[in-house]
Order: sequence, then C-alpha cells, then structure tokens
Amino acid sequence: MSSRAPLGLIPDAAVLRARLERARAAAGGTGLLIAPGSDLRYLIGIGGGSFERLTTLVIPAEGAPALVVPKMEAPGFAGVALDELGVDVVTWVDGDDAYALAAGRVGPAAQIAVSDFTPALHVLGLRDALPKAEQVLAGPIVRELRMRKDAAEIDALRTAGAAIDRVHARVHEWLRPGRTEAEVGADIAAAIVEEGHTLADFVIVASGPNGASPHHALSDRVIESGDVVVVDIGGPVPEGYCSDSTRTYAVGAPRDADAATTYAVLQEAQQAAVAAVRPGATAESIDAAARDVIADAGFGAYFIHRTGHGIGLDVHEEPYIVAGNALTLEPGMAFSVEPGIYQTGRWGARIEDIVVVTADGVESMNQRPHELVVL
Amino acid sequence: MSSRAPLGLIPDAAVLRARLERARAAAGGTGLLIAPGSDLRYLIGIGGGSFERLTTLVIPAEGAPALVVPKMEAPGFAGVALDELGVDVVTWVDGDDAYALAAGRVGPAAQIAVSDFTPALHVLGLRDALPKAEQVLAGPIVRELRMRKDAAEIDALRTAGAAIDRVHARVHEWLRPGRTEAEVGADIAAAIVEEGHTLADFVIVASGPNGASPHHALSDRVIESGDVVVVDIGGPVPEGYCSDSTRTYAVGAPRDADAATTYAVLQEAQQAAVAAVRPGATAESIDAAARDVIADAGFGAYFIHRTGHGIGLDVHEEPYIVAGNALTLEPGMAFSVEPGIYQTGRWGARIEDIVVVTADGVESMNQRPHELVVL
Repeated sequence: MSSRAPLGLIPDAAVLRARLERARAAAGGTGLLIAPGSDLRYLIGIGGGSFERLTTLVIPAEGAPALVVPKMEAPGFAGVALDELGVDVVTWVDGDDAYALAAGRVGPAAQIAVSDFTPALHVLGLRDALPKAEQVLAGPIVRELRMRKDAAEIDALRTAGAAIDRVHARVHEWLRPGRTEAEVGADIAAAIVEEGHTLADFVIVASGPNGASPHHALSDRVIESGDVVVVDIGGPVPEGYCSDSTRTYAVGAPRDADAATTYAVLQEAQQAAVAAVRPGATAESIDAAARDVIADAGFGAYFIHRTGHGIGLDVHEEPYIVAGNALTLEPGMAFSVEPGIYQTGRWGARIEDIVVVTADGVESMNQRPHELVVL
Repeated sequence: MSSRAPLGLIPDAAVLRARLERARAAAGGTGLLIAPGSDLRYLIGIGGGSFERLTTLVIPAEGAPALVVPKMEAPGFAGVALDELGVDVVTWVDGDDAYALAAGRVGPAAQIAVSDFTPALHVLGLRDALPKAEQVLAGPIVRELRMRKDAAEIDALRTAGAAIDRVHARVHEWLRPGRTEAEVGADIAAAIVEEGHTLADFVIVASGPNGASPHHALSDRVIESGDVVVVDIGGPVPEGYCSDSTRTYAVGAPRDADAATTYAVLQEAQQAAVAAVRPGATAESIDAAARDVIADAGFGAYFIHRTGHGIGLDVHEEPYIVAGNALTLEPGMAFSVEPGIYQTGRWGARIEDIVVVTADGVESMNQRPHELVVL
C-alpha cells in the first residue's frame, strides 16, 4: 500500500467547471482520457496518484465526464465535490475490466486523446478496449488551457517565486569549502520546505566540473575554494504551482580565470531574453535573444540546451522556449529563462528566473540579484 | 532545469550484462524499448529520470543495445560503464528526431515492447516512428526477470525491511493524542531517512475514521485518545530496493468496542497467508488464505483490496497476490502480505510484512510484533 498525493489548495468549483467545459470544447469531438497528474489536478482540483490500477477522467464529446477510479482510491478524491463539477464517479474493484468501464464512458468517439504522461500500461489497455478509436495525445489540447494562466495561478507562481528567493538568500549559510554537495543539498532541501514549499522537488548543487553537466543533481564531491557552483532548486507550494530558480555562486575568487568574463556574457544573455518577453513575441525569439548574445561572444557551442520551459502545476510544461517554437506569447504565459554556459571538465554557470507575460511586457517571479554571488 | 534521480548502488557489470541478455532472450524477437524507471535501473544499473525528452534503452532482437538519451542528460548515466555492458550510447539534442533515432536501433522487428510506465508522449511518438510494428507491453517480459530475485536483491530487501522495522519501533515516540497526522507523519518521514532509506517514499498515518480508507495518506486531523491508527510506511534503501510495512496502533484503549476482536481476526488472517507461502503455491492461494479467515469471521465485505503486491526496485510490481492470479510461486519471489479490515466512518486496520519465497517456505523481511500496538 502506498500513497503520495498530498492534497493542496483546490480552486473553486466554478473555476473547475469552466476548465472542464473549455477542455471539452478544445477537444472538438475527440474523447479526452486524463490520467492522474497535473492535467487531472488542473481539471478537477486533485491530481491523484498514478499506480498500476487505472484511474482516468473521461471527458466525452457529449454527456457528463466520469472519473473512473479504483474503489479503494476513491477517498483520495473526497476533497473535491465532484458532483458540483458535474463529474460522475465510476468505481471499480480488482477483477473488473477498468478499460471497458472507461471505454463505455467515452461514447462513440472516432478519436481519443490520452494525457501525455499516461503510462503505456493504460495507453495500450485503452487501445485494446477501443480498437476503432485513433489514439492521439491530449497534451496539445490541454496545454491550450494550461499555458494561459489566470490571476490566481499567477499569484501562486508569485508565492512560489518568493519562497525560492528566500532559499537562495540563505545559500551562503551552507555553501562552504570542505562540505559535500550532498550535505549542502540536504540543508537547502530542508530550507525549501521551511520557506513554504510542500516538498523539495529537486536540488542541484553542481560544483566545479560538475557544473558543466546541466542535469547534475548532487554528489559526494567536496566543495573547494575557487569552485563555481550552480544551485538550481525548486518545488511546489500548497497551491500546487512550482518554483524553479538558478543562481551561480563562487566559493571565493573563481579558480578559472575566464569565469568572471564568461559569466558577464551569460548575465547579459539572460537579461536580453527577459527583456524580449512581451505579448506578440514568439517563444523562439526569446531563445534567440539569449543565444545570440552567447554566440556573438563565441560561446555558442557551450550553451547546450533550450532557453526555458513553461511552468505551472508541472515544473516542465508548455510553452517551451526553444528554436523552432513559433508560438506567439500571450499574457498569462509563464516560463523559465535560463541560459547556461558549460565548460566541460572545468565549470558551468546558469541563471534562471521564472517570468510571466503581462499585458504589455513581463513580470519576473524571482527578485534575487543576477550577479555571480561570490561567497 | 530539474533532476531527481539520485544514484544508488550499482550491480556488477557481469550481473547487468546477464540481465540484458536474459531480457533479449525473453523478448523472443520482439524489440524492447525501456523508458527511465526501475526497469531501466534493473537492466543497466541507473534508472535515469523521466522528463518530456525521450530517453530509452533499445534492446533489438539482434545487435548491440543502445541507450538513446538527450545529450544533456547523458552525464546522468556516467556512473555505469555502458561500454562494459555492450550498450552503445546514442545522444540527441533539441531539434533532432529522437523517435527516428530509437526506431533506427530497433531493426526490422514486427513487434516492439514498450516498458509499462513509458509516458503516452513517447508511446505514440514511437508508434508513429515505427508504424508497421505492433506495440505491446514490455512488463510481461521484464517481470519474468525482475520477479525472480537473486541473493543480492533479497539481501537488499532484508536491509530495507530492517530499516523500516527500526522506524516502527520508534513510532511510540511520536504518535500521541493532540498531534495531527501530518505532524506525526513528518517525524516518521525524518526517521525513515535517518534509519537508512534514501527517501521517505510514502507515509500513511490514518487515524480513527481515516483508517477506513486504505490509501489515506496524512491529514490535519488531530489524533485522539481511543483512536486506532494505521501506519503504513516505506522507501528505498541505497541499493534501490524498497521497504513497505504496516502496523496498526491504538492510542490508549480503542474507543470502538469491536476493534480488539476484529483485529484478532485480521492478525490470524495475515498469519495464515504468510504460512501459506511456499514454492508451488499460487499467488491467488495466498490471497485466499487471508480472505477466507476474514470472510469466515463475517468481515469479507470489509477487506476491499487484494492481499499483496510484489516489491523490489518498485514498491508495487509483480507478483500481485490477488484472486485470479494463478502464477506459481518460486524461490526468490518477494511480495507484501497485507490484509486489512475497514469499518467505514469508524476505524480500519492493516498488517503488512514483506516476505520472500525460499527453497522450502518463506522468510519475512519484517520482524516487528503483529499484535495491535496499544500506546
């Protein structure tokens, strides 16, 4: 037996009802099947837990949505008044054919859309129960709703941003020579919770050469004087919305003579990208704004990832700030701006803020200084 | 940017090479595509992290396996010598067609098997890149390997069982009237880590009426004198293998007059099920052994879930101890035995041990007493 879905703050029923209807309208005749996770939380207020037993919210083209859920997991949804949302609850017990139950609620759709993180187990189970329906992803449908945040969602992102700013403000207490990344990371993880997150979702303390790996998390490497250290941290607040902020620290004067000048390029790139954010700009233009500065300085080959990712109930969601994404930014879109420069074997640096597109420009959720923080 | 895949202890290259070859043989001509998670950890020693970018281990019917991985996430696999395992590394960057890369490594398979928890995003991406290959689940293939644990794996389960036993031995320090479930849960979560787990994967403190919901986690309910409290806790140890153990506590004499006598039935049922475990018995016979005792006492309707689940690198895996599963138990199979009785609106109880099938019977990973623990 296991359970790991802490309940959080749940939007009003009227908000959720409107989301359900907008999802149905956006699906345009396609049946939606939404697995536990943030899509489900967005639509009915509770994300549930994803295990091997099928739980799915069926939103048919016509008729009432239904939450198909194992009977024993149904109490996990008691915190939301599903009847007020117009959602039927269809429970099943071990031995029942849950896929047939879900299929029965979809109706005669020629196409069904499964949420992007539905496990293959259920994707193929639903395929076999609905052999005539073409399967597509629900992501492109649900993202149209989720990437346009309302005022309450943006307020939750502000709360998350302020909370992670308070953690960065305390990093100097823990980041010292002689301690391991893991030790520093444990202190940071505790502070992430102390400062108002429900959990420390991720903690990257990437020191010295480890900083050159963008996804390095923690290790037993002992931090040395002269190290440049990337600290990339975040987690959800009770509203469910996530923080994600990176600052780069130096433990004393950096041993690499090129670190300060290269960092200045990075800082300029991050600032240029944030400054480019406004309604009507494209996602890829924000990526280009950062990348051009870095490339012009001769470091293009060392910026090995996209500039950012959307953020909300998920740490990574639409819109992605990447070459090739011609999406036009609109007010309410929220994403990271996080260019990095990675010098394999020596050091790396990254600066990351979460920003929201406003009616006429941009608002940053993070307020910490952007300079290399020399401790 | 985020990362949450702490590295753990990695088996020897020879063990992993043998697993890869056994997986290929078990697939019998079907191409395997293994997503990040415990299947991947089982096969190459590192589970990686599952994000929106495709990472997959391709095991073709013929030729070398390949790990297709985003270039920026490749360093996360540096802890294992993939060349010693005979696994090629195929990196890609944003903008590349990762599905085409993976498809190119599968070869001309008429059938491909995707691991059970591959996100729909990648299931459908691979479907479109391999339109002529039938998709099936890899679970039935990989489970044939994973559910037969070797000596090192069983030793890791013993380590996990002893660690969670030490936490249960300390529950009396924290479970007191006037504290909330969430407060008690926070203390237990800290102890789970202190006693040797890498994280507190789940903490259920289900007091009074909350105990009647098998998947209740934590709430702000204040624990009262007379409450019966289900404490179901676990997490992975550095080897990656999980603990999962439930004991039921009473805070003073139970207020429900029927609790003690009903609990005695539950204890008898759990004991009967454990006693029935031996090579040659079926999974469903273990479920029946518990269920018959409970049903004979008139509580059949209150035991609303299967008796157990396999455990290893996942908290829930094969074999499932459930009616309809005629699987014959073999030495090395590990699973929970966890009957429960749930009195809606009043109280619930569950007793859970992890057991391993031995050459001639059963070994329990948990050694705490099974009686109702009156605090």
